[in-house]
Amino acid sequence: MNQDTICAIATANGVGALGIIRLSGGEAVKIAQKTFKGKNLEEVPSHTVHYGYIVDGNSQEAKGKNKDERTKIIEDRPETEDVEQFTIQNESSVTQYPTSSDTEEIIDEVMVSVFRAPKTFTMEDVVEISFHGSPHIAKKILEVLVKHGARLAKAGEFTMRAFMNGRIDLAQAESIADLIASENEASRKVALNQLKGGITSEISILRNDLLNFTSLIELELDFGEEDVEFADRTAMNKLLQNLRHKLGALIESFQYGNALKNGVEVAIIGKPNAGKSTLLNALLKEERAIVSEIAGTTRDTIEEVIHLKGTAFRFVDTAGLRETTDVIEKIGVTKAKEKIASAKVLLYLYDEQDSTPEEVIAFVKEFHREDLKIVLVHNKVDLTNDEIPNEFDSTLNLELFPDYCDELLRISARDQTGIEAVKTVLIDYVENLKDQESNVIITNQRHYDALRKSLQSVLQVEDAVSSGIHTELLAYELRNALEQLGEISGEFTNDEVLGNIFSKFCIGK
Amino acid sequence: MNQDTICAIATANGVGALGIIRLSGGEAVKIAQKTFKGKNLEEVPSHTVHYGYIVDGNSQEAKGKNKDERTKIIEDRPETEDVEQFTIQNESSVTQYPTSSDTEEIIDEVMVSVFRAPKTFTMEDVVEISFHGSPHIAKKILEVLVKHGARLAKAGEFTMRAFMNGRIDLAQAESIADLIASENEASRKVALNQLKGGITSEISILRNDLLNFTSLIELELDFGEEDVEFADRTAMNKLLQNLRHKLGALIESFQYGNALKNGVEVAIIGKPNAGKSTLLNALLKEERAIVSEIAGTTRDTIEEVIHLKGTAFRFVDTAGLRETTDVIEKIGVTKAKEKIASAKVLLYLYDEQDSTPEEVIAFVKEFHREDLKIVLVHNKVDLTNDEIPNEFDSTLNLELFPDYCDELLRISARDQTGIEAVKTVLIDYVENLKDQESNVIITNQRHYDALRKSLQSVLQVEDAVSSGIHTELLAYELRNALEQLGEISGEFTNDEVLGNIFSKFCIGK
Repeated sequence: MNQDTICAIATANGVGALGIIRLSGGEAVKIAQKTFKGKNLEEVPSHTVHYGYIVDGNSQEAKGKNKDERTKIIEDRPETEDVEQFTIQNESSVTQYPTSSDTEEIIDEVMVSVFRAPKTFTMEDVVEISFHGSPHIAKKILEVLVKHGARLAKAGEFTMRAFMNGRIDLAQAESIADLIASENEASRKVALNQLKGGITSEISILRNDLLNFTSLIELELDFGEEDVEFADRTAMNKLLQNLRHKLGALIESFQYGNALKNGVEVAIIGKPNAGKSTLLNALLKEERAIVSEIAGTTRDTIEEVIHLKGTAFRFVDTAGLRETTDVIEKIGVTKAKEKIASAKVLLYLYDEQDSTPEEVIAFVKEFHREDLKIVLVHNKVDLTNDEIPNEFDSTLNLELFPDYCDELLRISARDQTGIEAVKTVLIDYVENLKDQESNVIITNQRHYDALRKSLQSVLQVEDAVSSGIHTELLAYELRNALEQLGEISGEFTNDEVLGNIFSKFCIGK
Repeated sequence: MNQDTICAIATANGVGALGIIRLSGGEAVKIAQKTFKGKNLEEVPSHTVHYGYIVDGNSQEAKGKNKDERTKIIEDRPETEDVEQFTIQNESSVTQYPTSSDTEEIIDEVMVSVFRAPKTFTMEDVVEISFHGSPHIAKKILEVLVKHGARLAKAGEFTMRAFMNGRIDLAQAESIADLIASENEASRKVALNQLKGGITSEISILRNDLLNFTSLIELELDFGEEDVEFADRTAMNKLLQNLRHKLGALIESFQYGNALKNGVEVAIIGKPNAGKSTLLNALLKEERAIVSEIAGTTRDTIEEVIHLKGTAFRFVDTAGLRETTDVIEKIGVTKAKEKIASAKVLLYLYDEQDSTPEEVIAFVKEFHREDLKIVLVHNKVDLTNDEIPNEFDSTLNLELFPDYCDELLRISARDQTGIEAVKTVLIDYVENLKDQESNVIITNQRHYDALRKSLQSVLQVEDAVSSGIHTELLAYELRNALEQLGEISGEFTNDEVLGNIFSKFCIGK
């Protein structure tokens, strides 16, 4: 609890009307007060905001010299001056331009909020300084705070403290990073639900059940030598079945949760001139205003993103794909496979003029994968002017394929007919991922991994129970299952895992 | 005063740990309360911060339906829950994933600060909402605020209200924009000084003097028919002399102020291979960490910036300059002149191997301009290995040139010798602009223009006084001078001028 005091800019990089610097720790108020000219922050109530200046005193001695005089001016300031404005106390004297020879230099005019432990985000004393949003001013203020004993915070360190001090659990901490990074409704909602404790409460029900039975098993272990079965094995079996079912549903929900949180990667594949970019542009058309380049990606991996019903569909590396379709025909399929590897949905574009049904069939057989939905898109139907499936389409029998290729659309990307059908296929893909059995949706890989391990342990326990294996193994696997679930909320975890989680946060959170 | 309520994001664009949305206007608290679940904001004291959620109720009716129930949960929340955290009230029930069918949807978990008029920045009620810093969440919150009656603020509208409501004068309003845009110590200090009222108080002294004498003159006008000279013309002359002197000093300070605020444009010119980029890189070397591309500039006009003693030196369009040196020799000097036109300092690079003294002399004579300091930089002295000026240098007599070319440096950009001397020349250039006579530095073109017009009027008055022209003209010019000064603080101004000033602010300020 008695950690050092940390500080960081909490607002986005760049120039804004205002910026916020946040301090947290036992000395937060004391350090802020040392840099602040205004009310005495050490005496103000919690959750109040105060007007003043951040100043940099060059030395303790120099500060002392002018302190009385300067403090007086501030104290004389009437309560009504507690606003974001300087007032010239003495109209007749010209305010001197501050030079570096001043013993005390004003950095900025600010509003300071004081939050006292434990009713704060970190459960420590927290101070927030609202300054004129220039990055240069932010840097100056941080320098002064560090000079007076604060330390620059590491990424995620505020949230880590909130977790360490028991304010939030690990899943909630992770949800804060997700919330900040949310780019659409789907990702915002799942993050908010996680912050509200949705996953935690679901997990805690599972853990409670497991815990009760673990106690029973361990009781049995204590009496092990007498070889008496205290636990009711039938009831236990029922519980385990129930647990397996619930865990399974949560694990299943990850595919949906992941689609909501991270979006769905879609690859558009086809021969040169099959109309890939025309289709992409047609899809993008209505969404153009909100299409964005994903932050942090390089030119080479720019994505086009389309938001449909709040879910992001990411058309990855479409430039590359255009090249690789040549590659497919000329030097092989290795590179194309690489591109398709991460996609969840593949739109295969072809037209009658330039393709044969056999080619299309060969392509699907080459590229199919269990977790890849392949959609055949018959493009340029305007050229054949033929709405009824013809010989080409009849030859291309969907029954030839496994069920991840069960859609055949007829479109004209150029005329923008059939585009809605393509969108519907994409939306349906996500809707079909939704597991009606789970109230809570898993969106985090770490939670998914922990749940899978927990399920494995539960399956081991089930096996052990049904084959009458010694209770010691049961107890071991039950503890495993419990610890895996505990990792999600952070009850069982280690510094490495924590470091890994919080290092991905932004600075200031 | 009774204006509509405006709202805007006040923090920088992009993803941050937190973002701030600001509301101002008579309905600010009421509108915030409509979107807020937590304490009743209409009842909390000013300058306090409160925890809660921003919610979106789909319809008034739907809201009413669940209101009692929902409010109850919030009201039951004990005071200690006033922290940035969700608490599961009922551990045994799984929190439902919020769907679009909910009548009330939580947008985000927030901290809301309430500031009551008139003790606020705008002198109106102000509410600040601190949310998880995702631009998507910001957009959602703004949508809800607009739905409940707020209007999206125009650029600078908050500050404009602060000015309109008499909280700050126009020069102070302008200084807020300058402060936010400040990129180094020099620009921060001049902006802060202006915010503190430095210019305003200087101007008000001048205005007071002018005002007194205007009254005298106007008194004289009233008695004009009797042709009596009430005003003491000698005293008036002395005052005008004093005014002229002070105005002159302020006007003079603009060159310095402008250098502090906007930096100094420096052009490096020389033949191909004269070592222009080597010199620039040598200058940039130590500063590399803080070198930044100026926001908003395109690739074509990227600037390299070096900060020396808090002042920015901007090496404009160096890519272009490299091209144009070819142009100088091949197709003429038009394009080069264009490039040099905006520069304040020109570093002309040459070396003995590839130049003649005559060439250098011809260049200076071609390009000299009164407000351009030309520095001759003899590069590649390592090649001649000769520290004593030789025949080349003696021929290149600085006395040939006017005084804006009075520096000849001998450097080796490659060996990085003489680089400090180049820096010293740049620093000295700025130091020499400093006018010791003025306490206040003018940094704003608008103020500069107003001061110049005011000075013109004062000079007219002086002329009129000395040539005994009728007092009516005196009064007219005095009023002119007064109005010009009044424009700086915004006492005399019009909507067009105001619109022009505030439209350059960022949104949310």
